[in-house]
Amino acid sequence: MYRVSADPNSEPTPTDPVWWGWGRADRHHALPAATRTLLTGLFGVSGEPTPPVAPGDIRLPPVRSSAAARADLVAAVGADFVRDDARSRIAHCRGRSTPDLLRIRAGDASDAPDLVVRPADHDEVLAVLAVCATRRLAAVPFGGGTSVVGGLVPEPAGFDGVVAIDLARLDRLLAVDPTSATATFEPGVRGPRAEELLAGPGFTLGHVPQSFEQASIGGFAATRSSGQASAGYGRFDAMVVALRVATPAGTWELGRAPASAAGPDLRQLVLGSEGAFGVITAVTVRVHTRPAVTIYEGWRAPDFLTGAAALRTLAQDGPLPTVARISDETETAVGLATATDPVPDVAGGCLVVTGYAGSPSDVEYRQAAVGRSLTAAGLTPLGSAAGDAWARGRFEGPYLRDALLDVGVVAETLETAGFWSTLPALYAGVRDALTAALAGDGSVAPLVLAHVSHVYPTGASLYFTAVFPAGPDPVGTWRAAKNAASAAIVAAGGTITHHHAVGTDHRPWLDAELGPIGLAVLRAVKDAIDPDGLCNPGVLVPARPGARPAR
Amino acid sequence: MYRVSADPNSEPTPTDPVWWGWGRADRHHALPAATRTLLTGLFGVSGEPTPPVAPGDIRLPPVRSSAAARADLVAAVGADFVRDDARSRIAHCRGRSTPDLLRIRAGDASDAPDLVVRPADHDEVLAVLAVCATRRLAAVPFGGGTSVVGGLVPEPAGFDGVVAIDLARLDRLLAVDPTSATATFEPGVRGPRAEELLAGPGFTLGHVPQSFEQASIGGFAATRSSGQASAGYGRFDAMVVALRVATPAGTWELGRAPASAAGPDLRQLVLGSEGAFGVITAVTVRVHTRPAVTIYEGWRAPDFLTGAAALRTLAQDGPLPTVARISDETETAVGLATATDPVPDVAGGCLVVTGYAGSPSDVEYRQAAVGRSLTAAGLTPLGSAAGDAWARGRFEGPYLRDALLDVGVVAETLETAGFWSTLPALYAGVRDALTAALAGDGSVAPLVLAHVSHVYPTGASLYFTAVFPAGPDPVGTWRAAKNAASAAIVAAGGTITHHHAVGTDHRPWLDAELGPIGLAVLRAVKDAIDPDGLCNPGVLVPARPGARPAR
Repeated sequence: MYRVSADPNSEPTPTDPVWWGWGRADRHHALPAATRTLLTGLFGVSGEPTPPVAPGDIRLPPVRSSAAARADLVAAVGADFVRDDARSRIAHCRGRSTPDLLRIRAGDASDAPDLVVRPADHDEVLAVLAVCATRRLAAVPFGGGTSVVGGLVPEPAGFDGVVAIDLARLDRLLAVDPTSATATFEPGVRGPRAEELLAGPGFTLGHVPQSFEQASIGGFAATRSSGQASAGYGRFDAMVVALRVATPAGTWELGRAPASAAGPDLRQLVLGSEGAFGVITAVTVRVHTRPAVTIYEGWRAPDFLTGAAALRTLAQDGPLPTVARISDETETAVGLATATDPVPDVAGGCLVVTGYAGSPSDVEYRQAAVGRSLTAAGLTPLGSAAGDAWARGRFEGPYLRDALLDVGVVAETLETAGFWSTLPALYAGVRDALTAALAGDGSVAPLVLAHVSHVYPTGASLYFTAVFPAGPDPVGTWRAAKNAASAAIVAAGGTITHHHAVGTDHRPWLDAELGPIGLAVLRAVKDAIDPDGLCNPGVLVPARPGARPAR
Repeated sequence: MYRVSADPNSEPTPTDPVWWGWGRADRHHALPAATRTLLTGLFGVSGEPTPPVAPGDIRLPPVRSSAAARADLVAAVGADFVRDDARSRIAHCRGRSTPDLLRIRAGDASDAPDLVVRPADHDEVLAVLAVCATRRLAAVPFGGGTSVVGGLVPEPAGFDGVVAIDLARLDRLLAVDPTSATATFEPGVRGPRAEELLAGPGFTLGHVPQSFEQASIGGFAATRSSGQASAGYGRFDAMVVALRVATPAGTWELGRAPASAAGPDLRQLVLGSEGAFGVITAVTVRVHTRPAVTIYEGWRAPDFLTGAAALRTLAQDGPLPTVARISDETETAVGLATATDPVPDVAGGCLVVTGYAGSPSDVEYRQAAVGRSLTAAGLTPLGSAAGDAWARGRFEGPYLRDALLDVGVVAETLETAGFWSTLPALYAGVRDALTAALAGDGSVAPLVLAHVSHVYPTGASLYFTAVFPAGPDPVGTWRAAKNAASAAIVAAGGTITHHHAVGTDHRPWLDAELGPIGLAVLRAVKDAIDPDGLCNPGVLVPARPGARPAR
């Protein structure tokens, strides 16, 4: 198998990322038998594998950037860390949305960057940006490469090439302040490595999105990531107390205190900025004492909205578990039908998973209080096996997606959030829009699954998974369904994305989300920091080709 | 006594605000005997009252704005709600910092606005801003009028007058969403009225700053206010889920979900914007079920830093009380020496106050857990009397300040925040700077008191009160001390303000706080929304006289 090493000079290993799918080569597997049986029944899929094209058949455009630009970048970061070989460019082509995977599996690497640079530190990132300004290159920060919203696909018009700034070498824990319970990371540190680095001094970050194993600290900050333990540890944006950003205008340091009234909180402008204002080169986050106890439980809710309302009560009145999620009836049923673990008796209802991490007394108090509250709301306990099964499989979804693509079945996700009072209509609207759009001529009913996995006192997220047969144009089929779902989100008053970010995919919906003044503000901030528009052009903020002055 | 009614057409009543000091006329009192004894001993003050000048001796500049501008404003809001009489102008002159009071007591109303308008709703605010643009008027949003940082004193250069936009008539609770636990207020609603309006549907906001009785919802949002119960209810900026702003560019609506990844959180740009981007006309906040139980307790810490570290443990490991504060040794001793309530036995240590508001089981759990934690940290319980005494006097400080000014003693406050590891040096640095700067020729030692009243997992606030004899130039004396304290804050890495905002007073320190890129971003946002620079010019963002195009 052709694999893409993090270091293009090294030989590929089984733990290297693959170019055609999610994560590590050695974690891929064939579709589980139960899933194959279910899908054959639903869609009549053949079950015959349809693998990606051979590596030699990947179509890669010629490098557009000049030799002079390359030489300047070599001067900035060293010859070993400027690459334009096919393997490096393909490894940095797009992110990991299902359309991204469909395109790359079909051999389309037309969005690959021209050059991949791997700076060593903040100063080298500044130097790279300076070269990009001089040589009219677009700059794309690249952390874990897990964007599912086109965040790694800038609009190159008006530039003489695109440079991916791979942050893998900015992989240090720069500081731990045990008194303040903070840690400062470089952006290239991925989820598991962050936890390893914190384990020594006895801390945990507690940020565990599904992308945990691949995604990076810088990406968490740049996209406002939210982890599966957000009920206990909060969203990533709420963990950040300070930031350093390399911008075309120089170094920007933010965060002198946990909270301040010294004007607007500009940290909240950098969080979610998706590389459009520069490259985040250090992130200081709150850390927690490592929990002595971690447990998971399952509960059965009679129906989705009853279960969601039970989680609402927890979020509003407290205490909350560390993990709080509920699958709707369809997601619960599919999970049961395809489970390899022992199946809990959910019997037509909805699976709720609660998790607790903390000191023994804290976990004991919360588990008992939550149990009383859920019981009073009409839920019934399923014990720890159902919770443990969820926890074991929590990072496997993206690998399953690759196995589905292998047999011609497409799975893709989208997510939103809204206030509690809007949630029932938001749920029904998006679910129905996806179902109708993917039904095609009516011969096949798509699977549309949903769960709530992030709860707040005033509202919650909704996360949808659609599964459907690829058909002749799976990218176009999904695009139509995504458009229908996005329109339903806007109509129901939800946000176009709760934790996946804007990228290029959600940009058409940002007008409805932010309004003309909000968009003008983003544009003004970008113009102030990045007057040449070279930072991830077209991501988050619309690109303005031609407006950039020649140099 | 000459008083300033909220409605200039009405006769003054005892509950109306006074022009020369804090709050309501009927709440003012002479200096308590114990305080007078203490200060006579310390400073040798005469104790003879030095009252404000007679109302007729207040020096008010002529109205600069044109008759045409006045007519346009009358067309926008109605003749009854456009005022240029002396009483209205004086009532809207500056805020309530001690220098503000010293100036107005001396008859200096040179910063009074030319016109006071009282729009009825959002659309009328938009109409007022349109007139300001056409007639070259600077617009100052006026809520409770309690700014202590010069937030109501724009720089009028380049404008043909200043209009105070008094938001008192925007006093409605626009919506309550009991499912989402949110409430939408107009900005002119003051603290007590907000609680009254929420009591009907069974909710509380829980935002109780010392200015609670006078300050307004719009001001809380515009200045990032923080209340005394912030440990339980959070800062005001953390309560806000949606905002509507009337800007020169039109209406700006923000907040479609509790949390979002649709780019930067632009709500956090409006929070803390201090009128520089427009006028906040609606604020949607999280509300809580009214607590069944509210209790306060006192604790004795052996010293300030030991007590602060005990609060740090609560903030990092939980659970937190609803109120958590500690006075340093001096503030504790002064409180004991001047107390009218029974005196707890703190004996050379520091008074800690904890409060709990919630359901019986929640309060029982937290009170017990906090008690164990504080005891383990070396603190000793003082019982409920010490806590209740604090709660009874919690809004009296500003009235005491007026009584002190009456006898020629100046009291003023400043505040900061930092990470826990920086807090000891920040505390010592600011305390020593204030003490040295106010010592003058060394003949009188000022009183410098401090407390921690807002704690976070990663840091805390520090709030200082300085008390010193007025001398011949109290404004100049305080300015020098404030400058020395601000330099100490910057040197120790703290924020220039934790919850008082920037106004004009802190603007010289914003460069150190935000850096050139942060300042450029604020400027760019203002220019995008308010190209004429008419929104509170010089507040938060430096004014640019002359840069504004003539119309």
